[in-house]
Amino acid sequence: MANINDNFLKLKAGYLFPEIGRRVNAFCDANADANVIKLGIGDVTEPLPEAIRTAMHSAIDEMGQSQTFRGYGPEQGYAFLREAIATNDFQSRGCDISPEEIFISDGSKCDTGNILDIFGPGNTVAVQDPVYPVYVDTNVMAGRTGEADENGRYEGLTYLPCTADNDFTPSLPEQPVDMIYLCYPNNPTGSVASKETLKKWVDYANENGSIILFDAAYEAFITDDSIPHSIYEIDGARNCAIEFRSFSKNAGFTGTRCALTVVPKSLKGKTANGDEQEIHALWNRRQSTKFNGVSYIIQRGAEAAYSDAGKEQIKTLINFYLENASILSEGLQSVGINVFGGVNAPYIWLKTPEGMKSWEFFDHLLDKAHLVGTPGSGFGASGEGYFRLSAFNSRANVEEAVQRLKSLMG
Amino acid sequence: MANINDNFLKLKAGYLFPEIGRRVNAFCDANADANVIKLGIGDVTEPLPEAIRTAMHSAIDEMGQSQTFRGYGPEQGYAFLREAIATNDFQSRGCDISPEEIFISDGSKCDTGNILDIFGPGNTVAVQDPVYPVYVDTNVMAGRTGEADENGRYEGLTYLPCTADNDFTPSLPEQPVDMIYLCYPNNPTGSVASKETLKKWVDYANENGSIILFDAAYEAFITDDSIPHSIYEIDGARNCAIEFRSFSKNAGFTGTRCALTVVPKSLKGKTANGDEQEIHALWNRRQSTKFNGVSYIIQRGAEAAYSDAGKEQIKTLINFYLENASILSEGLQSVGINVFGGVNAPYIWLKTPEGMKSWEFFDHLLDKAHLVGTPGSGFGASGEGYFRLSAFNSRANVEEAVQRLKSLMG
Repeated sequence: MANINDNFLKLKAGYLFPEIGRRVNAFCDANADANVIKLGIGDVTEPLPEAIRTAMHSAIDEMGQSQTFRGYGPEQGYAFLREAIATNDFQSRGCDISPEEIFISDGSKCDTGNILDIFGPGNTVAVQDPVYPVYVDTNVMAGRTGEADENGRYEGLTYLPCTADNDFTPSLPEQPVDMIYLCYPNNPTGSVASKETLKKWVDYANENGSIILFDAAYEAFITDDSIPHSIYEIDGARNCAIEFRSFSKNAGFTGTRCALTVVPKSLKGKTANGDEQEIHALWNRRQSTKFNGVSYIIQRGAEAAYSDAGKEQIKTLINFYLENASILSEGLQSVGINVFGGVNAPYIWLKTPEGMKSWEFFDHLLDKAHLVGTPGSGFGASGEGYFRLSAFNSRANVEEAVQRLKSLMG
Repeated sequence: MANINDNFLKLKAGYLFPEIGRRVNAFCDANADANVIKLGIGDVTEPLPEAIRTAMHSAIDEMGQSQTFRGYGPEQGYAFLREAIATNDFQSRGCDISPEEIFISDGSKCDTGNILDIFGPGNTVAVQDPVYPVYVDTNVMAGRTGEADENGRYEGLTYLPCTADNDFTPSLPEQPVDMIYLCYPNNPTGSVASKETLKKWVDYANENGSIILFDAAYEAFITDDSIPHSIYEIDGARNCAIEFRSFSKNAGFTGTRCALTVVPKSLKGKTANGDEQEIHALWNRRQSTKFNGVSYIIQRGAEAAYSDAGKEQIKTLINFYLENASILSEGLQSVGINVFGGVNAPYIWLKTPEGMKSWEFFDHLLDKAHLVGTPGSGFGASGEGYFRLSAFNSRANVEEAVQRLKSLMG
C-alpha cells in the first residue's frame, strides 16, 4: 500500500481557528438570540475598492474578445503587475528590487508554505513565539521537526519568545539557525521592527549564512514614518532575505486572492557539495513546474491598486481599520486593560485581566459579552496570558464591542 | 549557509517548452516577415463563454457592497461550486462522488505537483511514456528519483511505453508500484482508455495497494459514448484513485484559473506503523494549511459552466476545437502522414515522415512551413519519432497550417 507522509501525523489536531469555530458554534446553538460579534480571524470586511473592481470588469470584457483574450500567462506573473510593484512598493522606498525578482502568486499562505520545497531537509529553523501557525505547521509537514511537547512546541524548532518583558522584540538565537521567519508588523502581537532591529537580523543572517523569510503582509498599516515597510530598506538584505507580501489586508483581497514574493537574484544557498546556488533560479523552477500563474483578471485588479484612484481608495480603507483599532484600544485601556499593537497594525494584543489563561478569557468574553477574539496561547506557548482582537469589522460592530467590554469590565 | 533541495539539480535544464520558445524566437529574429503559426503549446484561443463572464461581472459587483462582500472562503472551495461539480460531472454519470470529496484549486498543474506533499518519500512511481513532464519533474523535486540517463529517463521511475505498437495502451508494470499516473484522454498522444482498460488498472491498484493519479483534464473532448469520462465510472476506483480535472480546456480557463481534485473518503494509505490512514484527511489538512482557496469571482465563473447557457456555450467551444482537430488530421492523412488522436482529444499525435527524429521534424516544419508543433521526444524517450499538433487555434490558422503542410509534404 502507498505510504503517506508520516510527518502529517505530528500535527496537532486542534488547530486554532477550527477550535474557535467549534466553541462559537456551540455557544450560538445554545444561545440562538445572541448577537455574537467576531473579532477573531483577521479577515477584511469592507468592499473591494472601486478602481480595482473597474479594472477587473475591463479584464473580463477583454477575455470576451478573440483579439484580447488571454490564455496561459507567465507563471511568474504579468510584467505590468511586477513592474508596478517594483516601482511603487520597493524602488519608491529606495529598495533595489527589480520586476524579475518579484513572483506573483495567489496568496502569502501558499508561498510561505511552498517556499520550503526549494530548501534542504537539514536546515534549522527559528520562529517568533507567538507566531502565525502556518510557518510552524509547514515545517512539520516537511519533516524538519520532531514531535510536539505539552506546550505545543515542536522538537527541533528554535522558538524566539516575544512578550511584554522584551517589548515583543526577540533576542538573536543562541545557536546559529539556517532559516528565520520574521513577521513585521507582527501577527499576532501588532508590534513593529525599527531599522536598528532589522539591521541586527540582517547582519546576523549574513554572518551565519542564514535566510530570513520576511512576512510583510501588514506593511500598509505602518503609520510611523521611521519604521521600514520592507526588509530591503536594510543594507545587506538582498543577500539574506526573501520577502512575502499580499493584497489581502491592504486592498481587501482575502476573497479575491493575490500576493507576491520577492527573491533577490543575489540570494544564495548551499548545495550538498558546498557549492553556492542562486535561490531565485530554484524558486523560478519550482513555480514554473508547480504553478500556472494568477488569473489575468485578478492581476489586472491588483495592478489597479497602484493607480492614483486605487492608492487613494486603499488609504481610506487602511485608515478606516486603523480607526477601528484605535477605538478598540482606547476602550480597553479605559477599563484598565494593558494593550499592545493597534497603532501600526490591525491587531490589538492585550494582556488578559486578573491573570486569566488565554482560553479562559476567550470563554469569558464569549459567554458574558458575546465577543469572539483569538486566544494568545493558540499562537504559541509565549502567547499564554494574551489575547488578540482584530480591527477588521464594521464601525458599528467595533463600537458595540467596546460598549460591551466596558459593561463587562468597567 | 542554508542548504538547498539538491533534488532540483537533477532536473534537466532544457525543459521542453522553453527550448521550443528559444528555437522559435531565433527563427523569428532571422525571418522577421515570416507568419509563424503556433500549434505547439496546448493553450486555448477562443473567448471565455458569455455565461461565465456574466457570472464573474456579478460576483465583482457583489464584492463592491458590504452586505455581499466575501473575504476568506473555504480552502476547499465554495459549496455552490462543489455541489454543481458533484451533480454534473460525477453523479450524472453514475459516479458516487460527494461534494465534500471535491477540492477546488487554481490549477491541475498545481494539484498534481502538490499532491506529493501527502505521500511518503519511499513510494515507487510509474508514468506513461510519453508523459506530461510535470508528473516526472515534481517527483524528481520530491526526491523519488536518481539522476536522468542520456534518454532523459530518471533512475527509480517506472516508465510505461505507449507507442503505435501497443496502440498507445501501456502494459501493467512488471514490478508492483505504489503510485501510477494515468492521463486520459491522453496528453500528448490523444489516445483514450476504454472501460476495460481502466478496469484493468483499478483492479491492479486494488490488488497491489497502489494509488492511481488520474488526470482527466481533457474529458470534455470525448465524443465516443463508450469511453468513460471519470475513473470513478469503474467499480473499485473509490478505493484506489485520485482524479484531477480542470476548467482550462473545456471552459477556456487557461488564463482564468480554476481546477478541482477528487479525493474519495474511502481512499487509504499506510503509515510507517502499518496503520491505514484516510488520504482525504491528509489532503484537507495540506490544503487548509498551504492554500487559501480560489478567488470567489473565479469560482462563480466556474459555477456558470454548469448553467444551461454555460453548458451550451462550452459545447460550442469543444466542437470548434474538435473540428480543428479533424481538419488537421485529414490534411495530414491526405499527404500520407500517419496520425493518431484528434477524435476524443484536442491533440494530433503523428508519426514523423521518413523516420525523421522529433526535433529534426520540428526544425523542418518551422524552417519550411513556419509551423510550430511539439517534438514527441520532449515528452519522453518513447515519444521519439512522433510529433504533437494542438487543435487550439483559430479556424483561419488551422486551415492555413493545413495548406502549408500539403505544400510541404504533398
